[in-house]
Amino acid sequence: MSTGPIRLTGTAHTALRPASAARITGGFWAERRRVNAAASIPQGPGKLEEAGNLRNLRAAAGAEPGGFSGDYQFQDSDVHKWLEAACWQYADAPDPVLAAELGRIAALLAAAQDEDGYLQTYYQLGRPDLRWRELAWGHELYCAGHLIQAAVAHRRATGQDALLAVAERFAGHIDATFGAGRGKAVDGVGGHPEIETALVELYRETGQRRWLSLAGYFLDRRGHGALADSLGTDRGHDRDPGAAYWQDHAPLREAPTVTGHAVRQLYLLAGAADIAAETGEPELRTALERLWSAMARTKTYLTGGLGARHEGEAFGDPYELPPDRAYAETCAAIASVQFCWRMALLTGEARYADLAERTLFNGFLSGVGLDGERWLYVNPLQVREDGEEAHPHSDQAARRTPWFRCACCPPNAMRLLASLPHYVASGASGASGASGAGGLQLHQYATGAYAAGGGAVSVETGYPWSGRIAVTVTEAPAGEEWTLSLRIPEWARSGQGAPAVLDGAPLDAASTPDGWLRLRRRWQPGETVLLDLPLAPRLTRPRPRVDAVRGCVALEYGPLVYCLEEQDLPGGVAMSDVRVDPDAPLAAERRPDLLGGVTVLTTGDLTAVPYYAWANRTDGAMRVWIPRQDG
Amino acid sequence: MSTGPIRLTGTAHTALRPASAARITGGFWAERRRVNAAASIPQGPGKLEEAGNLRNLRAAAGAEPGGFSGDYQFQDSDVHKWLEAACWQYADAPDPVLAAELGRIAALLAAAQDEDGYLQTYYQLGRPDLRWRELAWGHELYCAGHLIQAAVAHRRATGQDALLAVAERFAGHIDATFGAGRGKAVDGVGGHPEIETALVELYRETGQRRWLSLAGYFLDRRGHGALADSLGTDRGHDRDPGAAYWQDHAPLREAPTVTGHAVRQLYLLAGAADIAAETGEPELRTALERLWSAMARTKTYLTGGLGARHEGEAFGDPYELPPDRAYAETCAAIASVQFCWRMALLTGEARYADLAERTLFNGFLSGVGLDGERWLYVNPLQVREDGEEAHPHSDQAARRTPWFRCACCPPNAMRLLASLPHYVASGASGASGASGAGGLQLHQYATGAYAAGGGAVSVETGYPWSGRIAVTVTEAPAGEEWTLSLRIPEWARSGQGAPAVLDGAPLDAASTPDGWLRLRRRWQPGETVLLDLPLAPRLTRPRPRVDAVRGCVALEYGPLVYCLEEQDLPGGVAMSDVRVDPDAPLAAERRPDLLGGVTVLTTGDLTAVPYYAWANRTDGAMRVWIPRQDG
Repeated sequence: MSTGPIRLTGTAHTALRPASAARITGGFWAERRRVNAAASIPQGPGKLEEAGNLRNLRAAAGAEPGGFSGDYQFQDSDVHKWLEAACWQYADAPDPVLAAELGRIAALLAAAQDEDGYLQTYYQLGRPDLRWRELAWGHELYCAGHLIQAAVAHRRATGQDALLAVAERFAGHIDATFGAGRGKAVDGVGGHPEIETALVELYRETGQRRWLSLAGYFLDRRGHGALADSLGTDRGHDRDPGAAYWQDHAPLREAPTVTGHAVRQLYLLAGAADIAAETGEPELRTALERLWSAMARTKTYLTGGLGARHEGEAFGDPYELPPDRAYAETCAAIASVQFCWRMALLTGEARYADLAERTLFNGFLSGVGLDGERWLYVNPLQVREDGEEAHPHSDQAARRTPWFRCACCPPNAMRLLASLPHYVASGASGASGASGAGGLQLHQYATGAYAAGGGAVSVETGYPWSGRIAVTVTEAPAGEEWTLSLRIPEWARSGQGAPAVLDGAPLDAASTPDGWLRLRRRWQPGETVLLDLPLAPRLTRPRPRVDAVRGCVALEYGPLVYCLEEQDLPGGVAMSDVRVDPDAPLAAERRPDLLGGVTVLTTGDLTAVPYYAWANRTDGAMRVWIPRQDG
Repeated sequence: MSTGPIRLTGTAHTALRPASAARITGGFWAERRRVNAAASIPQGPGKLEEAGNLRNLRAAAGAEPGGFSGDYQFQDSDVHKWLEAACWQYADAPDPVLAAELGRIAALLAAAQDEDGYLQTYYQLGRPDLRWRELAWGHELYCAGHLIQAAVAHRRATGQDALLAVAERFAGHIDATFGAGRGKAVDGVGGHPEIETALVELYRETGQRRWLSLAGYFLDRRGHGALADSLGTDRGHDRDPGAAYWQDHAPLREAPTVTGHAVRQLYLLAGAADIAAETGEPELRTALERLWSAMARTKTYLTGGLGARHEGEAFGDPYELPPDRAYAETCAAIASVQFCWRMALLTGEARYADLAERTLFNGFLSGVGLDGERWLYVNPLQVREDGEEAHPHSDQAARRTPWFRCACCPPNAMRLLASLPHYVASGASGASGASGAGGLQLHQYATGAYAAGGGAVSVETGYPWSGRIAVTVTEAPAGEEWTLSLRIPEWARSGQGAPAVLDGAPLDAASTPDGWLRLRRRWQPGETVLLDLPLAPRLTRPRPRVDAVRGCVALEYGPLVYCLEEQDLPGGVAMSDVRVDPDAPLAAERRPDLLGGVTVLTTGDLTAVPYYAWANRTDGAMRVWIPRQDG
């Protein structure tokens, strides 16, 4: 069984199942994960100490005097997310130093837990009398969710039960507290989803159906305006941001589109997808498909970024996608990848991995500094040269920052990178899988080894700098047909460029109508297929309804979105005055010296760098969408 | 002397002085003012009663039990602004019913005042111990400013001293409390400017220089980050929106451009212009000219609207002017007109009246419903057909509303409309005025009678539906040369259309290089000049640096900006898909039946209505900037 974040039960109703083993061993993502393991994760405890998070836990454990430090009720969740990241990393590459850190922090969490199972230092140290009484802003169920996820990761990575027991006690306390029945103290939900997906995973880990039921309760209780009613009891938080902010405007099953606070929306969608996977409820799956489609079609940036508005950290109206004021929080990109992956498993469709790829290589990775030590909270697609940093919160400035006052993004990025191998491949047994056949599916391309669906493959590729992908079947059912499915990325099947080539022969589009190239045969171990994706620089025009970038083009190369940075402009040219000639030739040039090694794109006298690498040299103007000379 | 809002002292250092008499007697603005007088102002006290504002005052006066009602610390200021509006209205058209209302509310304010002169019911009823201790969010000096302005208007309109005495006692209390010297309890400023302009007017009304000095203290104390330091003492308002939010990021004299909360910035600028007018300080005037220019050139919407961001109700970066997420608060437009008028008086330059005209006819007037009973808080330039009303605060929805929870805009609009005649004309005595000559200057065109600079005129015009303006000199110095100056609006001197015509002879542009047409002669009373401004529909292209509307055009007609509304679109066409052919003919058509009587513009199968009149029929999509077919 996989040591990744989704371990479906045997009765789950999904088209696909996560790979049983997955390792990334080289190439682009291996390098990003190396930095995550060598810099980001090891520095976490120091950051959490400086920001007071660990002190809060020691104080709650009675090991240190003092009250709560920090600006946010959800301060503990930074610890939980770091711990989850460290566990996935440890599972991938066991290491005694990391093991000691894991053990120390898991023990600290256990010590901080109250007798009755409750654990959130903000209330423990501050106002224990107000537990579960500030549902709108308190973030208690949110923190509980992240604790549960960390505990599940800890169990899977170390085999130890202690932290899982902490999580189960907390979940038990929540189950005893929340519900509609007699004897329940609270019938309501928390302002920030997260508990839903966590409880489903706790169900998967423990086999106890009560956690799935409780997740279902939280999903169904939401969307009836209960949070606005509870606002009056939130101290100092009388501001009502509107029901959509916390996804309480409509039951998820009825909502026509994604709206409100993007991260809250996406965590809720991921949790709902987990519930649908385990219950098989068709109406819920239909709602999830509808919401994902509305999001992908009308509210997603070219980078995969989500959330068009700073105010309320929210989705905008359909096609409201300003590049300059894009919020596109790193956490929203992470949550989108999680949601997409669950939908890919649920349905077997390739389009979810298309969006996940776009998000991973662009709107997510831009949030992580090349050094793994500086982060972006928001990921705009344009920064003007005369921007005044008028934004009051440095957290949300377009400038890399070592840590944030609201530090949700860095440990979240760490856990995604640490668990990334588990987003690459899936399996389906038998010929009835929704992908058209059993076997192994490669959703993403990363050098490594993946086992699923009764077989295994090794992948070798220079992707995304090269379109060549060599897949060697290392294990397959002997004497039986078995299907290796390769996703032909959306960018490679748009019909604009050359077709993909398999073992020297061009693929016609009809062979991959749904994005999957299915190779069904009797495989011999050691047999290799060679997929060549047609990598060439391209100009992308925006959809006509996207008002904010009308008359512009973007530069793309495979899955990568490019941008201009001020320092690369020809002398004397202001970013605001740059124009691109859509008819001028485009070229790609490998620059091993630049930004850790990238391919740059050039057109006329302009040089563009991958968007994920922006703001790693000096601060300055940047833009993804460039006005056309004729626009 | 004028009964308007600015009554310069005899020693003021301005190029121009407000008209000594000003009446609007017919035409476009007379109708808007009739609705203001017949609907908006009479309904005010009922709205203020419903919202609890008047009850708060009765409670503070001890006439009623109970605590503070309402959501905002600055609730009293709605009363003050309504009272100011009612006073200007009364000065224009005395009326016994209005006199009784004025008297009742003025008496209520007097009764609510504390012994020591303090008056703000939020603290009086709630936490008197926290007076002057929540400088950042408490709005005490802001409310004091509006009270002072109401009191000055009351004195000018009624000749009575009672309310002015209330204001002077409050100002005296503030003067005793604030300052850097020994014996002063507080050395600081309030989070929301307004006191500055009010204290200068109190100085003008009473002749007491201490009020001018106190205004100067508040101006100079600002911009040194003191408000962030004081945040810790604001209960439940620990949120730090950044120093620019309350204009505390830099001293106004040093700030390179306008930034932060738009209304706060503009009230501060208006107050600083008042100070510059009375002190004659050249550095302050230079700073004001720099800030105005930066604002007009890089941060002003086509409608004159100001404030590109919902978050922080703030100016954006230069050229960040999204039409859909324009905040463009009605109060910001009002404050801009106030600032522009002060700059026009200070400098004598026509460009300030150009922007004031654009703002009055578009971004301000859109905030006022045609019925005078429904208001807009924000004034976007685009609403999509599938907008989801995701905005949590109905105050800030693009939908007309009878009153707001935060009701700053309606009484503010009432006071501007009630005092509007005082923004039309000015005078300068002698030949040395900055306008190039003494005499009378017409900054705006509205049928009425205006006296200034030793003479008087009557104006007759159908402006803005007609470009013909008849100005009759009704009084002029006998046997002496005297100058009548007519502003040739920027839209009429752009060189695009036909030239303006004076008494049948085309004007060449060289005769009005600075926007003023100066007619210097020996005038006979009864003599009339006829100015014909070349009114024709025109297509306006955006400046190339304004990214958000690239590839679009706007329709304009004289000073009016036009928009498409969903209900006027050809059947089956979605607003998001409309395109305009820039080469198709444009036509203007008078529609007396529509929207109280407007001229519509047509091109192809599209019909555009004046922007000020949008959202007066049904809710729906709207846009000012329309994509070009070739864009």
